[in-house]
Amino acid sequence: MSPIAVSLGDPSGIGPEVIAKAWAARETNDLKPFFAVGDRRSIEVVWDGPIALIVDPDQTASQFGDALPIMQIDDADDIVPGEPNMSGARCALNALEIAVGLTRSGAASALVTGPVAKAQLYAAGFTHPGQTEFIAERCGVSPSNVAMMLVGPDLRTVPVTIHVPFAEVLSHLSPEMIMARIRATERGLIRNFGIARPRIAIAGLNPHAGEGGALGREEIELIQPAIDQLVSEGMDVVGPLAADTMFHARARALYDAAVCLYHDQALIPIKTLYFDEGVNMTLGLPIVRTAPDHGTAFALAGKNMAEPGAMIAAIRVAAECAEQRATNIG
Amino acid sequence: MSPIAVSLGDPSGIGPEVIAKAWAARETNDLKPFFAVGDRRSIEVVWDGPIALIVDPDQTASQFGDALPIMQIDDADDIVPGEPNMSGARCALNALEIAVGLTRSGAASALVTGPVAKAQLYAAGFTHPGQTEFIAERCGVSPSNVAMMLVGPDLRTVPVTIHVPFAEVLSHLSPEMIMARIRATERGLIRNFGIARPRIAIAGLNPHAGEGGALGREEIELIQPAIDQLVSEGMDVVGPLAADTMFHARARALYDAAVCLYHDQALIPIKTLYFDEGVNMTLGLPIVRTAPDHGTAFALAGKNMAEPGAMIAAIRVAAECAEQRATNIG
Repeated sequence: MSPIAVSLGDPSGIGPEVIAKAWAARETNDLKPFFAVGDRRSIEVVWDGPIALIVDPDQTASQFGDALPIMQIDDADDIVPGEPNMSGARCALNALEIAVGLTRSGAASALVTGPVAKAQLYAAGFTHPGQTEFIAERCGVSPSNVAMMLVGPDLRTVPVTIHVPFAEVLSHLSPEMIMARIRATERGLIRNFGIARPRIAIAGLNPHAGEGGALGREEIELIQPAIDQLVSEGMDVVGPLAADTMFHARARALYDAAVCLYHDQALIPIKTLYFDEGVNMTLGLPIVRTAPDHGTAFALAGKNMAEPGAMIAAIRVAAECAEQRATNIG
Repeated sequence: MSPIAVSLGDPSGIGPEVIAKAWAARETNDLKPFFAVGDRRSIEVVWDGPIALIVDPDQTASQFGDALPIMQIDDADDIVPGEPNMSGARCALNALEIAVGLTRSGAASALVTGPVAKAQLYAAGFTHPGQTEFIAERCGVSPSNVAMMLVGPDLRTVPVTIHVPFAEVLSHLSPEMIMARIRATERGLIRNFGIARPRIAIAGLNPHAGEGGALGREEIELIQPAIDQLVSEGMDVVGPLAADTMFHARARALYDAAVCLYHDQALIPIKTLYFDEGVNMTLGLPIVRTAPDHGTAFALAGKNMAEPGAMIAAIRVAAECAEQRATNIG
């Protein structure tokens, strides 16, 4: 299997540090070979370990045991941890573009993206809402057809709506949208995790999933019709479940993924349980793409305080899914 | 300290079973003496252990080591676990009323309530939304002045709105309502838990707490004004915090209680972490009142499958809070 491409993200954020720490912890975590894409200086200002510049992903395997392989992107001006600027944003974007291209071509088996700062990206002329939409476009997929999955050790959640204000969530929900997310979830579980017949649970919107209509009718009018349709097609979908009682250990053992209706409903359980090891995975792409479920954390950058757990988990999940996809095809 | 009064709840639900199991586990859990109020037959149909009928709470101490003390309420017709009826609902209500009265008089030091079935209570003529409102009225407190706190081993949450449909949550939120809940939370932490200067965190409503207004303005218009006012009065209130990142172990160590804006925001973290030991506590009453954070679970009743962990936790928390209040007064 070809190596995994890891874009460093914003050179002033914690991305370079956690990627370097992930490499340093490669043996205890049994990580498959990966190479970083970005400006080596962003690592050198926060880490003293060995770096090996490479120009082709094929060089990764021979270097990975002794040094962190890096494909150099040098668009950034001086790099100061914790102090982002526009040239750093451009560097992050170029690194992302190259990492996506290498993954699409097969030179890399999966893509892991370090965190970027949206404010700087927008200032630098970036017109996509986030990295995910950019990657989707580069892969020829409509952003409306991709879905975000949060992956923890024993819980996966998929929000139907993501960065939508609370007051507007309801206007974004429809049986069609819910069905689309459940279908994407099922395909993602089959392709990336090798689950032949995924069991999918969907959360209710209202307290106690509406209590039969007494506390809201969205379960009856929006969610149940989506479930009925998908079950009639043979899918294993249960719900709407009361959101507060569906995420404890015994409950989450009963499904492979939980589809949730809004950001916090999907993110609270994952981050409450697995704050330091949550992985953000993009479903619906021709490539495997994961990311650590945290941001640039500029306030922590350069202080050797960043926890690499989520980056390590993102690299591990990416490798497992890439292997699974290779198995499916073979 | 006088004993704790525990109402059995619906005689056909799991209340009697978990209360009997809590008594059976009294030594390993170091539970203070308590007595049950309800129909002894509801326990006898699910449990073979020793029962001691009492007519005065003062008899509890001498009996508690050898048998579960019960004050008999015999309004119920035949009791069949899992099959509720109106006479059972009336029995549960009478038991509740007596247990409340004994706690108000000081004959009991705290009140723990077993789960009831609202549908049956309503059919029997009960006009309150739930047990909490009934207890508030009996204590001479307006139900609008009480608050619900969920208590886990290292997390306490207080929802501002509770059984409100998702679509109506926003219309129930105001700076005044938020301030009222935070004040009730502070008083509750001081009185019941002996925390001299409570640290209170409040959640944001929107994803990422609104990202400075980009994802919703309720943080700016409703929540921040409430915080500013309370901080100006000297309270230790922080927020609005992104709801997804405020409940993991390191984050929840930074506050004594989290005030949340709607049911699932407060309940998901507690039940995800502590499904079998979550305690529901009522703040704003002249008495200590707790309950296990689960329902009648009729489907489990009579099968010896009910977990007593939450009832044990409810009795323990009630005893700790009653002792704390006694210390405050003394």
